[in-house]
Amino acid sequence: MDNTACTCVALDAMGGDYAPDEAIQGAVDAVSERKNIKVLLVGREAILAGKLKAYTYPKEQIEIVPASEVIETAEHPVKAIVNKKDSSIVVGMKLVRDGKADGFISAGNSGAVLVGGQTIVGRVKGVERSPFAAIIPTKNGVSLLLDAGANVDARASHLVQFARMGSIYMEEAIGVKNPKVGIVNVGAEEEKGNALVKETFPLLKACTDINFVGSCEARDIPMGACDVVVCEGFTGNCLVKMYEGAGIMLRSVAKECLLSSTRSKLGALLIKPAIRTAAKKFDASAYGSAPMLGLKGLVVKAHGNAKAKQFKFSIFQVETFKKQDLGNKIGKKFEAEAEAKKETLAARRAAKNN
Amino acid sequence: MDNTACTCVALDAMGGDYAPDEAIQGAVDAVSERKNIKVLLVGREAILAGKLKAYTYPKEQIEIVPASEVIETAEHPVKAIVNKKDSSIVVGMKLVRDGKADGFISAGNSGAVLVGGQTIVGRVKGVERSPFAAIIPTKNGVSLLLDAGANVDARASHLVQFARMGSIYMEEAIGVKNPKVGIVNVGAEEEKGNALVKETFPLLKACTDINFVGSCEARDIPMGACDVVVCEGFTGNCLVKMYEGAGIMLRSVAKECLLSSTRSKLGALLIKPAIRTAAKKFDASAYGSAPMLGLKGLVVKAHGNAKAKQFKFSIFQVETFKKQDLGNKIGKKFEAEAEAKKETLAARRAAKNN
Repeated sequence: MDNTACTCVALDAMGGDYAPDEAIQGAVDAVSERKNIKVLLVGREAILAGKLKAYTYPKEQIEIVPASEVIETAEHPVKAIVNKKDSSIVVGMKLVRDGKADGFISAGNSGAVLVGGQTIVGRVKGVERSPFAAIIPTKNGVSLLLDAGANVDARASHLVQFARMGSIYMEEAIGVKNPKVGIVNVGAEEEKGNALVKETFPLLKACTDINFVGSCEARDIPMGACDVVVCEGFTGNCLVKMYEGAGIMLRSVAKECLLSSTRSKLGALLIKPAIRTAAKKFDASAYGSAPMLGLKGLVVKAHGNAKAKQFKFSIFQVETFKKQDLGNKIGKKFEAEAEAKKETLAARRAAKNN
Repeated sequence: MDNTACTCVALDAMGGDYAPDEAIQGAVDAVSERKNIKVLLVGREAILAGKLKAYTYPKEQIEIVPASEVIETAEHPVKAIVNKKDSSIVVGMKLVRDGKADGFISAGNSGAVLVGGQTIVGRVKGVERSPFAAIIPTKNGVSLLLDAGANVDARASHLVQFARMGSIYMEEAIGVKNPKVGIVNVGAEEEKGNALVKETFPLLKACTDINFVGSCEARDIPMGACDVVVCEGFTGNCLVKMYEGAGIMLRSVAKECLLSSTRSKLGALLIKPAIRTAAKKFDASAYGSAPMLGLKGLVVKAHGNAKAKQFKFSIFQVETFKKQDLGNKIGKKFEAEAEAKKETLAARRAAKNN
């Protein structure tokens, strides 16, 4: 196999509600569909080897990387990363750090993925914080909402970097030209907002490498008002989860009411194909899962309830990231800025000393 | 009319997208349905008098209070309240301040209602901040989410007061016994959260007069996981608007897909009654609009797109508030605490001086 053309993906087989079966199925589906992908299934060897036997797939495209420990959902992230050196998350992250994998995917403990991403894979020089970028379905496509929960006490300079990284991702990985960037706010006017938004707004306005369109009210996010939706991680996490919760609840109410009479049951049968088409349009899983941006390698956080399809597309997402050279496109930008800043400081210091 | 048994409601006839018609219709509907209510319609006298002529209603139950100015939606709240002394919002608030009305309802500029509430009506002694309390529909009833946007940079002590005021409102005005109070958080565990939530959590836990159940993830709000949902105003505003936006968008997608074929159109006809029943169950307007809690009088903020039904129920909401003596129940609690605090401080000072 030509290694430069091949994408190598480390997949946490032990993370998520349906581990390891759905992750294994996703890996098998991915390698069966695309030749130039190799999946490193990270987890308990005996279990994974036993399960894999049941599948037919190109054997050379899936390899098991043993990891004897599992970080559970409720575990304290920092302690888990420090203490469980042989967990699937730590082992998988190290594969990325050591250049043995192009990306790591996990549906496990979000906090541990976050801590591992920052401490094991590490941030690109110049990137102050690494956000989770959630790819959310909207009326006519998808938007990128970041930060979706990695940094719950972010600062204005962090938000500006999120906006810039998100723009690059949206343009290069999702294919939206000149993506519209909005900052989540409580009103459309520039003077609105909390202290953080008021501080961030003029900085975004002054940014020359993004297409900043101003404030974005939460109400307009589902309609796709902005391609890149910027906020700190607490609000972002709440927004993404409220969006999800509203959908779940409305579906549940709709189901109940459709089953309430013979008449509505018949109606439900008739609308089924149309509903299915709408649901398909509304499924963002084809874009993969939430990438952590600004790291030295790609880390992707899949939903805890991810199934095979989500894992397959997250594997393809790592391939796109590599093909588009996104790590470098984001990395070089921020590294160069960090260098320039350092040189300016050094020059100033030298001038002062002379 | 017996004035103690009668509720007098000041209604901003000039606020909202459908002013003044829907406000007038709401007032007419309210007084036609209930005897012991008097509505003071605040706004441009000639316009209101002209429009009112078209209606049949008990004349003694609606009175026009002239206000020549209107605060527009996009106006700067503080400047508007200061400069437009004869606006419907300022005039209406003064009616409450002067004891001429039991409450004031407006669908106008939220910021102006907020500023007017704090500066004209005024906060109860001991209340640090006055929140907007949004009454949101959930799967099996309603929850109270506060702060829905009045205080976008709130502190921990404010959130604790929101929780306590919200509990009283939920119990006395909505009728939920021993309401479950949750704090909006990014995870279920106690150690999760941003700095504000981490500071607030133990304070809520130590509160003896509320039924605090811990963290509430945004995903669980629509299912009605908590009766009183506490957060600062920025997150709260985003949550309420995202909830609304998700509903609007999903309805729009559903409509499109139902109209996409003859088969689905027929199905849509069949499910119509069931959907209507579900929508009715899901309509929180019978509970009124968002009250500002902790003021010396009741101020209610109706949605900008409020129609007659919403105004009518907001008028009834003022009646309930008065009947349940909620102003006093909230007021006395905080006033007594403020007094006790003052006495403790004075005693300490005296002890120090002796």
